[in-house]
Amino acid sequence: MTDQTDTMDRPEDDTEDDYALRNRVVASAIQAAEDGDRARLVQVFEPLHPADIADLLEQVNAEDRTQILRLAGDYIDGEILSEIDEDIRDSVVETLSPAVLAEAVRELESDDVVDILEDLDQLQQEAVLDALDVVDRIAVEQALAYPEFSAGRLMQREVVISPEHWSVGDAIDHMRAHTDLPEQFYHIVLVDPRHRPTAYVTLGRLMSSRREVALKDITEESFRTFDVTEDEGDVAYAINQYHLITAPVVDEDGRLVGVILIDDAMAVLDEEHEEDVLRLGGVGDESLSNSTFEIVKRRFPWLGINLATAILASIVISIFEDVLQAVVALAVLMPIVASMGGNAGTQSMTVAVRALATRDLTGSNALRVVRREAAAGFLNGVIFAVVMGIVGVIWFGSPAIGFVIAVAMVVNLLVAGLSGVLVPLALDKFGVDPALAAGTFVTTVTDVVGFFAFLGLASVVLL
Amino acid sequence: MTDQTDTMDRPEDDTEDDYALRNRVVASAIQAAEDGDRARLVQVFEPLHPADIADLLEQVNAEDRTQILRLAGDYIDGEILSEIDEDIRDSVVETLSPAVLAEAVRELESDDVVDILEDLDQLQQEAVLDALDVVDRIAVEQALAYPEFSAGRLMQREVVISPEHWSVGDAIDHMRAHTDLPEQFYHIVLVDPRHRPTAYVTLGRLMSSRREVALKDITEESFRTFDVTEDEGDVAYAINQYHLITAPVVDEDGRLVGVILIDDAMAVLDEEHEEDVLRLGGVGDESLSNSTFEIVKRRFPWLGINLATAILASIVISIFEDVLQAVVALAVLMPIVASMGGNAGTQSMTVAVRALATRDLTGSNALRVVRREAAAGFLNGVIFAVVMGIVGVIWFGSPAIGFVIAVAMVVNLLVAGLSGVLVPLALDKFGVDPALAAGTFVTTVTDVVGFFAFLGLASVVLL
Repeated sequence: MTDQTDTMDRPEDDTEDDYALRNRVVASAIQAAEDGDRARLVQVFEPLHPADIADLLEQVNAEDRTQILRLAGDYIDGEILSEIDEDIRDSVVETLSPAVLAEAVRELESDDVVDILEDLDQLQQEAVLDALDVVDRIAVEQALAYPEFSAGRLMQREVVISPEHWSVGDAIDHMRAHTDLPEQFYHIVLVDPRHRPTAYVTLGRLMSSRREVALKDITEESFRTFDVTEDEGDVAYAINQYHLITAPVVDEDGRLVGVILIDDAMAVLDEEHEEDVLRLGGVGDESLSNSTFEIVKRRFPWLGINLATAILASIVISIFEDVLQAVVALAVLMPIVASMGGNAGTQSMTVAVRALATRDLTGSNALRVVRREAAAGFLNGVIFAVVMGIVGVIWFGSPAIGFVIAVAMVVNLLVAGLSGVLVPLALDKFGVDPALAAGTFVTTVTDVVGFFAFLGLASVVLL
Repeated sequence: MTDQTDTMDRPEDDTEDDYALRNRVVASAIQAAEDGDRARLVQVFEPLHPADIADLLEQVNAEDRTQILRLAGDYIDGEILSEIDEDIRDSVVETLSPAVLAEAVRELESDDVVDILEDLDQLQQEAVLDALDVVDRIAVEQALAYPEFSAGRLMQREVVISPEHWSVGDAIDHMRAHTDLPEQFYHIVLVDPRHRPTAYVTLGRLMSSRREVALKDITEESFRTFDVTEDEGDVAYAINQYHLITAPVVDEDGRLVGVILIDDAMAVLDEEHEEDVLRLGGVGDESLSNSTFEIVKRRFPWLGINLATAILASIVISIFEDVLQAVVALAVLMPIVASMGGNAGTQSMTVAVRALATRDLTGSNALRVVRREAAAGFLNGVIFAVVMGIVGVIWFGSPAIGFVIAVAMVVNLLVAGLSGVLVPLALDKFGVDPALAAGTFVTTVTDVVGFFAFLGLASVVLL
């Protein structure tokens, strides 16, 4: 077993093998837990990175997780805790003894403590805060005073700063004299006498410059600051867009209050993507560690909204019962109308939602994009009109049916292209996340318009 | 105008304002281009970050882009070029004179040159390579010899290394003596006599240690290496998972050949997400800068596949023409069956595809997740069976129709939940990207099974 778990630590391995090994690691953790074998459990944990232990705890079911924590709860440190998915963090924290919890959080930087705290309930928060010493406790409480998902919550307060007039030698001497430097830092931030950041110097540049060089002569062009109340997603976007490593954060008076480092921004970007994908798929906020009951509860509202819009489509169909009664072929072709419209609408919507998220779709090109979608929808509509016209004639031997489905196809794909971009743009304008609501709106539009065009035209032509 | 463009540079501004300003910047660039006013165009560009200029070029239409480049092509430097979306990079490179192009790439690190080169055609590649001096050219050609999307393509070759026995003082003296240090570096990589990396030291730690301290006593635990042929997505995943800043890359003999920095990994993660979202939405590889004709061409195949599967559903319906003819209410209710099944399937599939992408869904928990999806599908099916049963009775005054749609709902949502997770798992097993193909398979299954259950049961009960 030791061999296998050892190898797991080497990501340079072939991916397939890596996964197979991971599975075996998880399996042997579960086995050790079920056998009540603490020694073997610790042996499994030993070579693992904290992030991998967190993943392991997420992947096992609730029962095994409780058992693992009962056996080796004292093995859970702050790093593991800060990596654990917020959905199960509560339950993990609950099983830990106050002493273990205190020990776990004490070693963390302030941003990680905040990250853990914000998902806990009041009582658990108190327990963690009590474990911190006064200085840390105040720091964490100040961070919690900033709005959720703000730069203030994401930043670490530990920053290496320097007056603007310092030389390279001054900075190096200062750092050598201080043993409490942040665990992670890549820039020295220059601040003016009022503690407002004005520039930064990378450690690499500092390192390769002579001692007498002035810091202000080797600052980086990439310097920019972020407001403490700014949305963490916007900061992450800027960090990615401008290849920043350190993002200084300032309060309303422009004074330095902390820095956001790129690895935390990367995690935010990852979470925001996760949220976007899930929302586009009609699942609010869900993870594999949720129980059956939880996912039923979370998916139910979306299915309910979908049912309401589907009934709307049904009502449109019911208007045309006469023609359906007369020509049953129409009922056979209906799913093609709905499916093609829905699909084309989803294509157009996906591009629009994504482009809005990446700030590529803006007021300056919206009109051009709408025109392009309309033209593309129309062109694809014409192509599939020809295809479906032929299918209609061959399948049902009726040029009239072929004509009806062909025209419906053009109308449907044109409307799909248009609504696919207009709905997200409108939602964005009204401050609603397009990823959250666009799908339902777009398919409602394509269903209603598609059925109306198809069956309405059929009534005129075939009755 | 100057005021506005100046302010654009400050991301700490309120987001709405920031966007409005961006729009105005783009608009004035277009205006300047149309007026043939080079001076004003340069004035617009001046305060912008290279990444923002790249965005601007992506947001304008092809005609304006050509005009902008004709006026101020010499303003395009390597940094802008490496930020430009690959879809339009070709056309931008084409408009640049060889001298401008050569100047643009000469200042870049090797990884950025490779990034630009890999999307150009043979002739353009030659032109760029010719612009480089021999050492750089060889470096770039070696990188291009690695597979596309591999660590070897992503890495920069410029690394600061040190023998294992050096002290802090040795390292600092070495760096001070070298003026050609990489533009960006955050670690010193320790290599053994055979040039195999064995550890690394952060610059922060180096900085705060006394000169006589041995490097090997202040190395970081987070150290791990990556194979040069490893997929860039896997490296980006590991960098995010383990909060790495520098990822040393080794060849098949374990020798150091370069490093991947977190900002490049963040860009890869972002691109992979983009790809996932677009694939899930049934759009292959598309961007806002594509022309109408290009998006028609790219979306057409997906719509074609969708049509084929929709026809399959139609064929199922055609089997039951008798009962549809007899009870037209069934045709009215059909879209509800299709829509609910499709939606529930998409929910389950989205969670599964995402969990596969984030390595959260593995062999060790697949069975548990499948069971959970089946149970959740069944439960939601029962809830909506009750709802639809009541709707059926009230709307059509027929308990039989209510019964049929209720049973169909349970079958449909159960199958949706199951296929939503089984299809992605199967695709993944066979090495097909689940994001690419799962949607079509899942909705085909839910449509076919849904219509079959609904109309088949109706035939038995109502005829």
